[in-house]
Amino acid sequence: MNTAAILHRPESEYAYLYKKDLMHIRIRTGRGDIKHVELIHGDPYQLDQTEWFKQSNHMTKGLTTSTHDYWEIELTAPFRRLSYAFKIEAYDGSILFFGEHGFSEYTDKNLKAANNYFRLPYFHEADRFTAPDWVKETVWYQIFPERFANGDLTNDPEGTLAWGSKEHPDREDFFGGDLQGVIDHLDHLVELGINGIYFCPIFKAHSNHKYDTIDYLEIDPDFGDKALFKQLVDECHQRGIKVMLDAVFNHMGDVSPQWQDVIAHGADSPFADWFHIHDFPVSYTETEDFEFSEDINYDTFAFTPHMPKLNTANKEVQEYLLTIGKYWIEEFNIDAWRLDVANEVDHRFWKKFYDACTTIKPDIYILGEIWHSSQRWLEGDEFHAVMNYPFTDAITAYFLHKTVSLPRMMENINAQLMLYREQTNQVMFNVLDSHDTPRLLTLAENNKELMKQVLAFTYLQKGLPCLYYGDEFGMNGAGDPDCRKCMVWEKEQQDTDMFNFIKTLIATRKAYQPILSEGKLIWTKADETTGLIEYCYQTPHHTLRATFNSGNNAITLNESTGVLSYLTHTTDHTLTIEPFGFNVSLINERTDEES
Amino acid sequence: MNTAAILHRPESEYAYLYKKDLMHIRIRTGRGDIKHVELIHGDPYQLDQTEWFKQSNHMTKGLTTSTHDYWEIELTAPFRRLSYAFKIEAYDGSILFFGEHGFSEYTDKNLKAANNYFRLPYFHEADRFTAPDWVKETVWYQIFPERFANGDLTNDPEGTLAWGSKEHPDREDFFGGDLQGVIDHLDHLVELGINGIYFCPIFKAHSNHKYDTIDYLEIDPDFGDKALFKQLVDECHQRGIKVMLDAVFNHMGDVSPQWQDVIAHGADSPFADWFHIHDFPVSYTETEDFEFSEDINYDTFAFTPHMPKLNTANKEVQEYLLTIGKYWIEEFNIDAWRLDVANEVDHRFWKKFYDACTTIKPDIYILGEIWHSSQRWLEGDEFHAVMNYPFTDAITAYFLHKTVSLPRMMENINAQLMLYREQTNQVMFNVLDSHDTPRLLTLAENNKELMKQVLAFTYLQKGLPCLYYGDEFGMNGAGDPDCRKCMVWEKEQQDTDMFNFIKTLIATRKAYQPILSEGKLIWTKADETTGLIEYCYQTPHHTLRATFNSGNNAITLNESTGVLSYLTHTTDHTLTIEPFGFNVSLINERTDEES
Repeated sequence: MNTAAILHRPESEYAYLYKKDLMHIRIRTGRGDIKHVELIHGDPYQLDQTEWFKQSNHMTKGLTTSTHDYWEIELTAPFRRLSYAFKIEAYDGSILFFGEHGFSEYTDKNLKAANNYFRLPYFHEADRFTAPDWVKETVWYQIFPERFANGDLTNDPEGTLAWGSKEHPDREDFFGGDLQGVIDHLDHLVELGINGIYFCPIFKAHSNHKYDTIDYLEIDPDFGDKALFKQLVDECHQRGIKVMLDAVFNHMGDVSPQWQDVIAHGADSPFADWFHIHDFPVSYTETEDFEFSEDINYDTFAFTPHMPKLNTANKEVQEYLLTIGKYWIEEFNIDAWRLDVANEVDHRFWKKFYDACTTIKPDIYILGEIWHSSQRWLEGDEFHAVMNYPFTDAITAYFLHKTVSLPRMMENINAQLMLYREQTNQVMFNVLDSHDTPRLLTLAENNKELMKQVLAFTYLQKGLPCLYYGDEFGMNGAGDPDCRKCMVWEKEQQDTDMFNFIKTLIATRKAYQPILSEGKLIWTKADETTGLIEYCYQTPHHTLRATFNSGNNAITLNESTGVLSYLTHTTDHTLTIEPFGFNVSLINERTDEES
Repeated sequence: MNTAAILHRPESEYAYLYKKDLMHIRIRTGRGDIKHVELIHGDPYQLDQTEWFKQSNHMTKGLTTSTHDYWEIELTAPFRRLSYAFKIEAYDGSILFFGEHGFSEYTDKNLKAANNYFRLPYFHEADRFTAPDWVKETVWYQIFPERFANGDLTNDPEGTLAWGSKEHPDREDFFGGDLQGVIDHLDHLVELGINGIYFCPIFKAHSNHKYDTIDYLEIDPDFGDKALFKQLVDECHQRGIKVMLDAVFNHMGDVSPQWQDVIAHGADSPFADWFHIHDFPVSYTETEDFEFSEDINYDTFAFTPHMPKLNTANKEVQEYLLTIGKYWIEEFNIDAWRLDVANEVDHRFWKKFYDACTTIKPDIYILGEIWHSSQRWLEGDEFHAVMNYPFTDAITAYFLHKTVSLPRMMENINAQLMLYREQTNQVMFNVLDSHDTPRLLTLAENNKELMKQVLAFTYLQKGLPCLYYGDEFGMNGAGDPDCRKCMVWEKEQQDTDMFNFIKTLIATRKAYQPILSEGKLIWTKADETTGLIEYCYQTPHHTLRATFNSGNNAITLNESTGVLSYLTHTTDHTLTIEPFGFNVSLINERTDEES
């Protein structure tokens, strides 16, 4: 037995409350090494009386990676507390007891020792990771406000260019997009079927992207005013659309009054401790690149002297940011916060932020921008989810960049799912493209069929899809600033086929979301030669099966059902999937049993 | 390479800030599988410009278990943020890159990919685990107040027995111990050399052990009053002795007014939500055992109907307990809280408790009673340490119970040290015996030489020693209530040899504590046949070496130094250690180099 490969960590994603009084326990073993795992469990205070250690429950082998198999079990406990350990049987015939103190022989003596067991001391609802129900039902739409629609010409900043007048926008361009433009086009979003809008920053700032905040308590005048924003939120809510704002709390813009005061008064500024300043006066050496200087005597976002980092350990800064967090909820009833560069802000501040926001709006959704593994932020008291780039990277690396093999994609997806609790995975924010990346169509080298396949593969997974504005009309664009082109509103420039495809895909996603959210992922077919990929999401009563042809030739299967098909044709008995095609079927297990 | 055995977890005990701007990084690999590990690291925003991925730093192989080797490195980062990954070379010749997305070939292409690196996004002092400096310098002394000394006969409860009149106290006996008794004997504690007292509960309660609190804001009248407690704390502080109180926040006694109100008024009681009650009226089926009933319609500690569990998610309960936490600090200047049954209270409450206490007294020490692995509680915002039973269990299992082999003891000690951050290990509370366990001498089957050896082995480790009252006079006692005998104050009954031994041991511990706290543990000799055990604690400039004979025959070594020796004799060139003996030497490395 490869004992060194076996891992369990109490009170983590390996042992957690899933629903009230319902626990999930996982264990990781070396791939292909273990035949059978059983969970031995009972009440910590009943070990001697009931000798529960003599019984055990079979664990199910679930997802795998190239190195590990993951085993899972769901269980409850009558007194809401648990002692547990594992009986592990390897293919080599060896059987060991694995608990709090590592491995030992599977003997009554070892099983009777109370200290040999892992513990979940009490099932505290207060410690359970929870997310509001509406979140998992949401399909998001990301709007970069300066480029979505210009609904009010009177608020255009000086030098605003005509809408769409440049095929490739430059970094400093303004095109006049605003909140009125969003209100004007809400019906478009309703038709598309999305039910959440993620707005890039709309607070008063210097640049077109507004990530260099000047005043977090004001709407940028280029975009509108508070009355208009209030109207926007209300109109969204009337249409069943949730509203998420982007908060940049890691740093401020250097044009902000706080930083300007530091420049003016140095150590005597009341804001001197609002930032991480090593020496006064603050200074940096200018370089050719506006956004880069290594010689800065204060901490910044990356090496950008124009974005001084906020000291979130300072009580006044905390008070200020918490006020902002609460203000837009209380006054405008926003539904979610997306937190920019969230990983570089301290955990202790985020816990305060979580408490402040959830206290006034228990069903708020808090999303952190983190590009790497995020376990520490997703314990249930900081964020509900993060921008799930590692998950979507696995998909794009296989389908678009062709940099990983099919098994590697599957392994990477599985590994991501096993990093977090099940209820976390249900609300992770699965972004294929954004204002920070090239557009999906460009990543697909303008192959619209491929783009559709990638969209389908992603939307039919656990976690929340997010469509980047304009993708529905087949817009393309390289990395920033090219991915920030003006939305195409002229009918003749819009790809209506893509629009209809995405509309149908979103409707399908919403129809089968409960199965995707609650179901277990099971990979059923994977053939790198033909490019055939099939997976299922399985609940006790339903299976949603998705089959993709990622190869170059048509694939024919002995099946003929489908609730959503693309580039497929069926006969009574067979299903043929063309390259870039896919087929999604609902298998109603209960009906099968009844028939 | 056994890749499945390799483990790293960002933002955990595997990657943490040790001191300001100083990080520790660990990785775990399969035992004996890996020849060499290097850390590749640099600033996340400089990967392209400086190509730091082309350099790497050697990691040191440290502690091992039967399944794993642990590697460590200490480093800093000029911009207080870090991307890092590992270059791993196995004995089989294979070399792999290990990072955020698992294993890949060690190629420039993989090394250049920013997303392949683990991240410590920013070195936040606010998120660093810290403990006050005084804590690691402390040798604790545990007092069970009802049995330490009766200094005031006027406060003895009715039916108090004559001091020491029963060789084996019964569960319900009272002997009149009180706070005046402690004050009367402070000089004894000063002579012994301890500098911290851990008091079992002293708040108003029903039983002799006072774990069934009636009023957390009153001193139990059997023990004295607040004025006397104030005097006690002041007198302790004058003598350089810290004071730790025991708070039982998991449950209350059923005699408390809150529970009595629930009994009287059921669901209408203002305290109805202070507990976890399933049905009203509250009830339980009596059994022969006063402390046991499985048929209870409210949650309790274990199955004890007389200890109803508090609902620490209730805001009023939180307010009440936080008030208590602050009251004894603010009014009496206590130095530490020991939290009873701490694992069964929710994390969210403990974080609030930590904030409340550290805000008013930044150098408070918060100790949780947890008997199992406690990583989730020791992230830096709940407890500073836990009662480290798994650590001392490893020692007693080898030396006293003979239930584990020498390698297993070493492995268990190592595994415990690798569960936590270095600064956590420095302040863990290493208890050999207590009011909950048989006394050390009884565990040693009344072999005083063996008891001394175990004390020495434990006191000369990282973590805080805690002496249970009376052990210094060679008291014995089986499990509760026999371990709660009256302290022997008659000179003729006191073992002065034991007293002098422990006094010397405490002085030695205090003298070399900086080396034990800051040093790395290295096992240098372990021979199960002879029983020879030798380990060192090593800092850059000093090595403290401890050698033990746990066998049945004298062991002679070619060394002759010692700063603390017991049952040893030396010649110019050799050192002979008798069974139960040991020798501790200080090796000043800098002097060695200079000479």
